[in-house]
Amino acid sequence: MDNYAEIYKSELLNEVVPFWEQYSVDQKYGGYFTCITNKGVVYDTDKFMWLQARQIWMFATLYQKVKPNDAWKKMALHGADFLESHGRDTGGNWYFSLNQHGAPLVQPYNIFSDCFAAMAFSALHQIEPLAKYEQIAKSTFQNILNRRGNSKGKYNKVYPGTRNLQNFALPMILCNLSLEMEPILGSDTVQEVTQSVIDLIMNNFYQAQSGLVLENVSDEGKFVDSFEGRLLNPGHAIEAMWFIMNLGLRNKDYDLVKKAEQIMYQQLEHGWDQEYGGIFYFMDYKGHPPQQLEWDQKLWWVHLETLVALAKTYAWNKSPKAEAWFKRVHNYTWTHFRDKENGGEWYGYLNREGKVSLNLKGGKWKGCFHVPRALLEIWKTLEKVTENK
Amino acid sequence: MDNYAEIYKSELLNEVVPFWEQYSVDQKYGGYFTCITNKGVVYDTDKFMWLQARQIWMFATLYQKVKPNDAWKKMALHGADFLESHGRDTGGNWYFSLNQHGAPLVQPYNIFSDCFAAMAFSALHQIEPLAKYEQIAKSTFQNILNRRGNSKGKYNKVYPGTRNLQNFALPMILCNLSLEMEPILGSDTVQEVTQSVIDLIMNNFYQAQSGLVLENVSDEGKFVDSFEGRLLNPGHAIEAMWFIMNLGLRNKDYDLVKKAEQIMYQQLEHGWDQEYGGIFYFMDYKGHPPQQLEWDQKLWWVHLETLVALAKTYAWNKSPKAEAWFKRVHNYTWTHFRDKENGGEWYGYLNREGKVSLNLKGGKWKGCFHVPRALLEIWKTLEKVTENK
Repeated sequence: MDNYAEIYKSELLNEVVPFWEQYSVDQKYGGYFTCITNKGVVYDTDKFMWLQARQIWMFATLYQKVKPNDAWKKMALHGADFLESHGRDTGGNWYFSLNQHGAPLVQPYNIFSDCFAAMAFSALHQIEPLAKYEQIAKSTFQNILNRRGNSKGKYNKVYPGTRNLQNFALPMILCNLSLEMEPILGSDTVQEVTQSVIDLIMNNFYQAQSGLVLENVSDEGKFVDSFEGRLLNPGHAIEAMWFIMNLGLRNKDYDLVKKAEQIMYQQLEHGWDQEYGGIFYFMDYKGHPPQQLEWDQKLWWVHLETLVALAKTYAWNKSPKAEAWFKRVHNYTWTHFRDKENGGEWYGYLNREGKVSLNLKGGKWKGCFHVPRALLEIWKTLEKVTENK
Repeated sequence: MDNYAEIYKSELLNEVVPFWEQYSVDQKYGGYFTCITNKGVVYDTDKFMWLQARQIWMFATLYQKVKPNDAWKKMALHGADFLESHGRDTGGNWYFSLNQHGAPLVQPYNIFSDCFAAMAFSALHQIEPLAKYEQIAKSTFQNILNRRGNSKGKYNKVYPGTRNLQNFALPMILCNLSLEMEPILGSDTVQEVTQSVIDLIMNNFYQAQSGLVLENVSDEGKFVDSFEGRLLNPGHAIEAMWFIMNLGLRNKDYDLVKKAEQIMYQQLEHGWDQEYGGIFYFMDYKGHPPQQLEWDQKLWWVHLETLVALAKTYAWNKSPKAEAWFKRVHNYTWTHFRDKENGGEWYGYLNREGKVSLNLKGGKWKGCFHVPRALLEIWKTLEKVTENK
């Protein structure tokens, strides 16, 4: 496992970060372009709050964890200025998207815009400690907690009472978000928020009998036999497990780390496509046809988050199982998602057989986040293993 | 083209209709099951209003247009009883879905539930002329017209004013729905509703310069360079063209029929996959990556609606072009979607290469509708050609 840290570092600093530096800055109206082809052409200029916020977070994090490069701080501030001016409605809720000029296009129905905004301004505050950044991060975080019960508000199309479901995504994000925001939230808040969330994930979304993590459970935390209730998203569950490993290590709760490791392997083994390799995007708990037509596609973030989980596992216990799985997923990921021809950011969407199905490097749901975050996480994680030898 | 009428008739009456008769009836709670695998297993019991209503319409239409088979009338009434009891909120809006027992699951955010309910009760009224069926159909139709400006109501997530778009689907459905409902709406209403809609489709959604039909245009009927604005759905546009051919023939407006034919070919030639055959599901007006991950899949309804359009064109002008395209699409469709092993209803979802990607015959969006309706339309259309020889 000795050479991997260097490979991941080099890809991050020589290919992926320069791609976003070169193509994503909107010098005219502020913020970032994220819809960029493999040739560097900006094919759409809308600004999606998830992706704007994630890029701010990414460059602030690079500045903090790699080196204090002024260009990176400038890049983070460039996005933050745009979001600060245009990103929120009068209630402080973050829009889903704006047009190139910053006028709102889609209402704040999606609480993950708020989650990534809180994460962005919190990270920015670490490298540029202005009170306004802390205030934005804190008030957004409070707003997320307030909206938790019905995060879609009036846009929620579910008829109340017939089949109330809890979704996995928000608890999962809160694990990571609270830890990311610990410097401004304080450790008591982190402890308080994450304790109930960890319990919910490990004892309700995780179904001990089958070993699988559900995307939606009933109000009582039980399996519900419906399209939403049967839905599995192996990559999502695996990503959550490395968030929980981080929390376990922080709290020196090594049983939790072990349980997260076990659950991670269960999702990976169940989600791995024995025929063509790679991890399925969606599956059905009972093996029925999922409603998502893209269920069998291979997505970049699923594979990169799995590599992070495996690198963390390896760093934790140096097990041959972690090493073997890391190498297997590494080979699939680097062979299929990396752009051997043009370099730069990686491809995002493959068909089941592993062929690139969209020639984009960024789009409505893919920006400067999963590839660089994973490269950074894996580099730093494996570097520590080598140093400690 | 002489043998096709018989082939389509036989497939309809010996395979597809018996499949739904055998597997879809919920004897216990009423209504229909639509989530059925290729082995006839019901894998989900939710009741989706689109599909419930479409099956009522289909069996009422078979009774009226094929033969007065009591079992078909009973089947239509079986669904209608369930919808009448459970399908609407207190304002007369149709829910999107109910659970097996008939309790609402998803709110009436989707006006196409109402469109298909109006079509269902109107067709039912033709074979069982009860006043209540006429009343349900008429009041639902009026409600659709009232909701037209903002059909999603409070569930609309678009921020008003920044980029208002008109969507193609409702005008397109109204062309067919009004004609279907002519017996109870009267010809003046049909004329009034369809005139403005035809104009909108042929002069705004259809872009003469490129020859392509857009899924969304601005309030002023212009192209908008955004994901929604660039979206093409060739099958949708082709289906609309056979609705418009029907209106042209009804009004003896043969220029309109000719224009619809031309537009149909333009979408078909542009949407045809030169590499693997079949018609793409979604494309981008400028050739950019679409946001829909399933863009390159081949869907049953796209191909069946294209066959209807081609059969109608052939019946109209006997052109060698219509014949050649009909045979080409027929061969692709019958080879790939028809279930050679189990018979019955056809498969719905193929990957780009033409391999079945979901082993279902029905699901959340596929029921007893496009396959039998197309088989019936093509049979009856081509039978008339042979008779008139």
